[in-house]
Amino acid sequence: MKEDGKKKLVTVLDGSAAAVPPIWMMRQAGRFLPEYRAVRVSAGSFWAMCMNPELAAEVTLQPVRRFGMDAAILFSDILVIPYALGGEVRFEENVGPLLTRYADIARVERDPAVWAAKLAPVYETLKLVRGALAPETTLLGFAGAPWTLATYLAEGRGSPDQRAAKLWGYRDPESFAGLLDLLADCVAAHLVRQLEAGADAVQVFDSWASGLPEAAFAEWVIRPTKRIVNAVRAARPGARIIGFPRAATQSGYEAYAAETGVNAVSLDTAAPMGWAAKALGPKVAIQGNLDPLLLLAGGAALDRGVDAILEATRGVPHIFNLGHGVVPETPPEHVARVIERIRGNA
Amino acid sequence: MKEDGKKKLVTVLDGSAAAVPPIWMMRQAGRFLPEYRAVRVSAGSFWAMCMNPELAAEVTLQPVRRFGMDAAILFSDILVIPYALGGEVRFEENVGPLLTRYADIARVERDPAVWAAKLAPVYETLKLVRGALAPETTLLGFAGAPWTLATYLAEGRGSPDQRAAKLWGYRDPESFAGLLDLLADCVAAHLVRQLEAGADAVQVFDSWASGLPEAAFAEWVIRPTKRIVNAVRAARPGARIIGFPRAATQSGYEAYAAETGVNAVSLDTAAPMGWAAKALGPKVAIQGNLDPLLLLAGGAALDRGVDAILEATRGVPHIFNLGHGVVPETPPEHVARVIERIRGNA
Repeated sequence: MKEDGKKKLVTVLDGSAAAVPPIWMMRQAGRFLPEYRAVRVSAGSFWAMCMNPELAAEVTLQPVRRFGMDAAILFSDILVIPYALGGEVRFEENVGPLLTRYADIARVERDPAVWAAKLAPVYETLKLVRGALAPETTLLGFAGAPWTLATYLAEGRGSPDQRAAKLWGYRDPESFAGLLDLLADCVAAHLVRQLEAGADAVQVFDSWASGLPEAAFAEWVIRPTKRIVNAVRAARPGARIIGFPRAATQSGYEAYAAETGVNAVSLDTAAPMGWAAKALGPKVAIQGNLDPLLLLAGGAALDRGVDAILEATRGVPHIFNLGHGVVPETPPEHVARVIERIRGNA
Repeated sequence: MKEDGKKKLVTVLDGSAAAVPPIWMMRQAGRFLPEYRAVRVSAGSFWAMCMNPELAAEVTLQPVRRFGMDAAILFSDILVIPYALGGEVRFEENVGPLLTRYADIARVERDPAVWAAKLAPVYETLKLVRGALAPETTLLGFAGAPWTLATYLAEGRGSPDQRAAKLWGYRDPESFAGLLDLLADCVAAHLVRQLEAGADAVQVFDSWASGLPEAAFAEWVIRPTKRIVNAVRAARPGARIIGFPRAATQSGYEAYAAETGVNAVSLDTAAPMGWAAKALGPKVAIQGNLDPLLLLAGGAALDRGVDAILEATRGVPHIFNLGHGVVPETPPEHVARVIERIRGNA
């Protein structure tokens, strides 16, 4: 904790550069950790683990215990939102998520009290984590962004080209805007409850923000994210929000940073951090963007990759992270190596 | 054909803007056409069709006949290069390509005469097409770029995250550079022979250029492409080359346009064409970038998408194309609609 009582990562979100950036990693609570795999086996299923506060809290805490990460991120899934809206969600081994497919939103649950009841285990998880976490460690909540959630809702599963959602949006823009608005409202309610349950900040994951023409990016990514930010801040003034429009174009990242109101933008592996430091700041902090496959590779290239990011972000508010999630095959010692190198011991 | 005797698309590659841009579409010789599917059935396999000059020439000509495209693009596959290098290549229905996997290049064929003999059907295809094509229609050859080919060679198949190639490149940069150089030399030889066989210009497809950190993009995409351009021009001075580093960052596209020596850069669906018109020209022409899923969707959104691209590229050398290939479910009438709209009849 800093002398002013703020957690280090929160200080960066508030616009101050840190000499040594705070660090956490997307999917740090995940299959690359043997202690995670042990809990996963005992839980029976991925979804059961998400909805069991004791187990979800345990795996949320594991990477903080092992590596001393500056932030714990809630163990959960972006598909809790379709679940709150009344859809069925299940995870098939080697297939990924399968969920109720929607072609309209006529029969969707719209009562926030019902959403909250269904997602109560998530808030309970955050309370358990908060109680177990050292005061200097930031607790992050999260949710999927409307566009990314819409790709799953429209397809009933993951989609390599987001085809069903794109066709819906191109062919019936009005109804698709209604879907995105509803999703934004549900996401905002979920984030507010996470902040109430003890999250210091929240991240909005737009994992499928790539490949969108400029006009679609503005309408399907930026507009709904702005709606979320406004709704969350209306309920929780000053709420801190990180946005991750993964693999947006550089123009897209710039517009997102300028227009959504987020405190920080998380950047994918390909985004040049020297450009991001100049183009996105000082309005927002930047987060990222080590290649998860460089983390897997290890060795001299990993050290150089870490150094390049530190060099490019020196003097600007920066949270060290990956450009995407930790891959399951990653040796935990590579993660430890990155943290040592960043903190100056390697 | 223009009054100066040049084909329209060639004029644009040489740096002149056209009032009505020339148009062709990636995968225009493909499954969305019933006449293509008929030939495909008679050929027995995709690979057999690639290696049969009569059938390959026929499907190359089909979209020119049906739509009056300004260019015919050779029907072939990027994996003819691994085949020339001595690997096995086969295409499994619903799986995609499977090919010999390499962990080094010790046992790779290095004799250009052997490459040429194995790829003779490709050159024969181009001669047949050239003979059948109207003089005003441009004939395009193509090849895969070294980085994209390396992702297949290292994995033995397609890879969602290009993992094997990235690990090779990160862990053993010297040997990986050797692989890319060898691929560049084989690609260059293949492109030179295509130009000799009648191609007016060639396109280099780097389909997996996204997701690369800045330094890797420079080393694995830009450097080998520059090697290809230099080698092709050494053999064929003034040879015209289009580069497609698909879904590069905007900084990546700018560096590629400035450093490789290509005549034109093809842009993916997300790239803002207003930016491209300013940032990449006048050094290079730009090509693209209609969303193939917007072409599938059709309707008012398609018209607006076409208009937006025309508007953004007015006055700069531009070849109308998609941001990626035509998807098999596309109604042919949507393609006809785009061409009518561009040529001012709709």
